[in-house]
Amino acid sequence: MVQIVEVGPRDGLQNEKRLLSTADKILLIARLIEAGAKRIEVASFVNPKRVPQMADAEAVVQGLPATSDCSYIGLVLNRRGAERALTVPVDELGMAVPGSETFGIRNQGQSAMEAIAQLKDIVDLARGSGVTVHASVSLAFGCPFEGQVPVEHVVDLAKRIADLDVTEIGMADTIGIAVPAQVTDLFGRLREAIPHRRLRAHFHDTRNTGIANVWAAVQAGVDVIDASVGGLGGCPFAPGATGNVPTEDVCYLLESSGVATGLALDRLVDTAHWINGLLGRAPTSGLSRSMCEQV
Amino acid sequence: MVQIVEVGPRDGLQNEKRLLSTADKILLIARLIEAGAKRIEVASFVNPKRVPQMADAEAVVQGLPATSDCSYIGLVLNRRGAERALTVPVDELGMAVPGSETFGIRNQGQSAMEAIAQLKDIVDLARGSGVTVHASVSLAFGCPFEGQVPVEHVVDLAKRIADLDVTEIGMADTIGIAVPAQVTDLFGRLREAIPHRRLRAHFHDTRNTGIANVWAAVQAGVDVIDASVGGLGGCPFAPGATGNVPTEDVCYLLESSGVATGLALDRLVDTAHWINGLLGRAPTSGLSRSMCEQV
Repeated sequence: MVQIVEVGPRDGLQNEKRLLSTADKILLIARLIEAGAKRIEVASFVNPKRVPQMADAEAVVQGLPATSDCSYIGLVLNRRGAERALTVPVDELGMAVPGSETFGIRNQGQSAMEAIAQLKDIVDLARGSGVTVHASVSLAFGCPFEGQVPVEHVVDLAKRIADLDVTEIGMADTIGIAVPAQVTDLFGRLREAIPHRRLRAHFHDTRNTGIANVWAAVQAGVDVIDASVGGLGGCPFAPGATGNVPTEDVCYLLESSGVATGLALDRLVDTAHWINGLLGRAPTSGLSRSMCEQV
Repeated sequence: MVQIVEVGPRDGLQNEKRLLSTADKILLIARLIEAGAKRIEVASFVNPKRVPQMADAEAVVQGLPATSDCSYIGLVLNRRGAERALTVPVDELGMAVPGSETFGIRNQGQSAMEAIAQLKDIVDLARGSGVTVHASVSLAFGCPFEGQVPVEHVVDLAKRIADLDVTEIGMADTIGIAVPAQVTDLFGRLREAIPHRRLRAHFHDTRNTGIANVWAAVQAGVDVIDASVGGLGGCPFAPGATGNVPTEDVCYLLESSGVATGLALDRLVDTAHWINGLLGRAPTSGLSRSMCEQV
């Protein structure tokens, strides 16, 4: 069994030019729950001036279906964001620690050490609330500004995160530059460095290596994989690029390989076509494109 | 070192609705040679009524640059096609043996055994000409009509092909349905069944598993991989689907993994944009899409 964390409503929509209404975001999340999603990144609690797509984060979460078997994740980058998310509330807080200093400063106004300090604050804030905290290293496979990100540095960040009370540590290929050999190497090292920590992988399909990277991660023992329905999203550093690995493609890959996901492929494809229609774009998912006549 | 066989001018263009002029096909092949291609499928010598995109096969080959270090491959399905190809001539003849009987009859008017009989004829015809012959099993991972294609049947066909004087035996995922676990399994079995035969892999990216399958094949020891510049082509059974794995994406995957291909990535991306422009479509390649601003 591999758990697919649906990130379309957050990482996907955050990178789309067209803004969706709050009602459509809520409907998207409801459809994903119907398709079997058990964990969904539902919003970012970040500066609405910098990320207008997420300005209605509180309203989205407040409008979500009450469900006992789907966990809602809010992305936060500091204590202030965590305070906002806890008022709504969400079930989990996710935090990003930048693997590259230049990207960290430019994208979230934090160095890696500043982000880890914020993460500690967030963990303290959430303690006793019933809301769990997890963190991912962004740019874990390469950076648009710095180029290579040394694997030893990424492992070191993961160890520092593992010193805190987090439920899960993710590795994010934010710009879609990784290849499977790198994925195998990094997760092998992490398994040794932090053997008891649950690992999670987040890939973008920018250079068409996303699905290959998912398979490499699963083979390395990772059982939590991020994906975005219809391949929602893109890459701010490559305007024509595709976004996150599409949920339906990851589902097809895994189910066809005998690995259960708990997701209903036909509902995902249906939702991919619907949401991409609202956004005025075609799904980047191979599977959804191949099934365009049937939907 | 992995050799990428460029199949865009044949498998790619054959599945495009818009017909290219003979001059543009020749220019495409010339540009691929400049990008470093050492083997190119340049045309199919098949019934022009069934495949009008390839009606000018002789004219294309006759117009190609004289080169001593790029091998031109003509696809043939019977003795008559081989006779045509040998008059031009090409350097290699490629033949397809259908993994599925239903597909074989519908697509090339031959059962697997009839195709193997034709292959024997083609081998006999080419003997002494200096032109080599190779063959691929099509539908080796699944069939749109029959569904699953038993792996034992595919291995049996490969053994029958290996009894003939062919230089290479390919496995083709004609409809882009394979997943890497299947690829690992099939090539592992082939390595045992026909240990001394050079193997080749041909994947379509219909369900976004193509690059993952390439990596699985390379890890299983396959060192000849088919790809199509810009992801030219499509799938006749899924009108909205993407085509062959894009050459530039395969090149990126391998070079970034420390596996040399001998190809110049920037020239491939440039050629992908140019040919897709002529065809009035966008490249399906992740890499070319991500570099759309630069070209």
